Amino acid sequence: MSSSAHDPAAVGVDIGGTSIKVAVVARDQTVLSRRSLPADQREAPGLAVARLALSLRELQGEAGDLSLPVGIGCAGLIERGPGIVRTAPNLPTWKDVPLAGMLAEELGTWVLLDNDANVFSVAEGFYGTARDKDDAIFVTLGTGVGGGLKLAGRLYRGSRGFAGEIGHMTIDPDGPLCTCGNRGCLESFIGSSRIVQRALALIEEERREREWLAAGLTSLKEITAKHLGEAARKGNELAVRVFEEVGDYLGLALANLTNILNPEVIVVGGGVANAGRPLFRAAELSLTKRAMGPSRQCVDIWPASFGDDAGVVGAAMIAVGNRHDRGLES
Amino acid sequence: MSSSAHDPAAVGVDIGGTSIKVAVVARDQTVLSRRSLPADQREAPGLAVARLALSLRELQGEAGDLSLPVGIGCAGLIERGPGIVRTAPNLPTWKDVPLAGMLAEELGTWVLLDNDANVFSVAEGFYGTARDKDDAIFVTLGTGVGGGLKLAGRLYRGSRGFAGEIGHMTIDPDGPLCTCGNRGCLESFIGSSRIVQRALALIEEERREREWLAAGLTSLKEITAKHLGEAARKGNELAVRVFEEVGDYLGLALANLTNILNPEVIVVGGGVANAGRPLFRAAELSLTKRAMGPSRQCVDIWPASFGDDAGVVGAAMIAVGNRHDRGLES
Repeated sequence: MSSSAHDPAAVGVDIGGTSIKVAVVARDQTVLSRRSLPADQREAPGLAVARLALSLRELQGEAGDLSLPVGIGCAGLIERGPGIVRTAPNLPTWKDVPLAGMLAEELGTWVLLDNDANVFSVAEGFYGTARDKDDAIFVTLGTGVGGGLKLAGRLYRGSRGFAGEIGHMTIDPDGPLCTCGNRGCLESFIGSSRIVQRALALIEEERREREWLAAGLTSLKEITAKHLGEAARKGNELAVRVFEEVGDYLGLALANLTNILNPEVIVVGGGVANAGRPLFRAAELSLTKRAMGPSRQCVDIWPASFGDDAGVVGAAMIAVGNRHDRGLES
Repeated sequence: MSSSAHDPAAVGVDIGGTSIKVAVVARDQTVLSRRSLPADQREAPGLAVARLALSLRELQGEAGDLSLPVGIGCAGLIERGPGIVRTAPNLPTWKDVPLAGMLAEELGTWVLLDNDANVFSVAEGFYGTARDKDDAIFVTLGTGVGGGLKLAGRLYRGSRGFAGEIGHMTIDPDGPLCTCGNRGCLESFIGSSRIVQRALALIEEERREREWLAAGLTSLKEITAKHLGEAARKGNELAVRVFEEVGDYLGLALANLTNILNPEVIVVGGGVANAGRPLFRAAELSLTKRAMGPSRQCVDIWPASFGDDAGVVGAAMIAVGNRHDRGLES
């Protein structure tokens, strides 16, 4: 029996704060089938894992291969080797959960766990936008700001696997307090809650409440970074301004990374990146203003190619172990 | 004839703004003999190269081997492959000087050119302090602030050789104007001219001119970062304060690098690092305050082991091509 690029290769799991996405992914990175489970922030990890195992078993069954390996990306402090979730900021009940082991026992299949930014970097860096580049930086913009590095053709994890925390780069010593305890981290300027906060302040300052409520919201409290991103993409002037500010800060951080690492490409994804052109254009300008000329000329900022599927695709690919295998050891 | 570790291995050249240091270095990195030539900022490059060739020939003769290879470290924008000095901030007359080729023709020996921060990184990263570490960051503090990276056991140069420009990391978007045109670069806060400026402001503010002039200077204009460093090492309260400020900014930048790269060690050298304990202690505190806990716990800040010889030793070692050879290609 010969195998084709469209055959199921693995199941990818993307554990976020509001939902857990699960998908069967083909060898050629096509998503063949998918599920989305609600993520319950108060649920005990044991129950969540049992629910997840059930879905995984279903998808494996539908794919006709109960031995399909499973790859998981999860935000937080992850111990990749033993497959343990030390802490997950979006799932406060998850502490020291041996997630890979629990699922492997339940399913009897190979389960690999990694943090969400590395999984994103595997998808974009070895199968997506930057697959032909040896030196690339990956940035995910969302509740948190994550990062990954592909250096000299390999995923670089640092001495103990903690590299890539670009969201906690100090960009202003007296900036806002960050969730990490430091002041002026990139994330404290462009994390999604800060974006919403900034937009609400502008809406109030400019008395535009009526205009925003007309868009179908019952209260301004319902506004999310996603709403704002959509508004910016459609050209809403206030939302555009907010994402231009975001792009300006992002560009400063990317200039620092460009000066330090001299990459060929910086791939920017995550929900906040859906704001599109206003964000990317401001980031390009700020990068040009602040990076050293020769390094600036080497680098482009590109949007992620797998969009919202980068998590499940990258997770599936870490389970397959293939072209990027070499890249997974640094 | 057998060769020993004490045999001459290469001649190392360290081109700085005030002097050009030349030394014969043994296979075991001992400096066997040395010269120092004045660097004349107005001299035509052709003349400077002729003077340098003469010294090199003399040292090769003294070492009894006219075929000793030559390695050169030079501050500035260096094209390593063809061995060209594009620009050298300390030597304004040097523009597009094919230094390696000129010397190779003159001497008939192998000549290799690299930038000073990379040469420092080769010395400390493959023969000095960090020789047993796979993931290390190198920082040189002087007129400029330079850097180098050893990642996964290899010197990392980035996609086009421009990596390591940590002096131009923006650490405050509204900070002082930097020589590179950007605002708030690390170098604009802790470059040696800024250190002198800061000390002079404090001396004036606190009316301490008399005390400083008593130390043998005829004018406060003669104060250099070197004087201040010596004073700080001896416990002079004002100088200590100045270098504590320097350490505070440095620690912020090292925290950014630690969050991004998760290194095992950061090696800090260059003239300004001679201020010693006040500088290093403040940098440690600031690093602890600003870096993520798990990454902070992995890393130590160490002083450079070759001191003022790091330049000539590293330059000689790039010419030998040896253990670090692997590390020289990224």
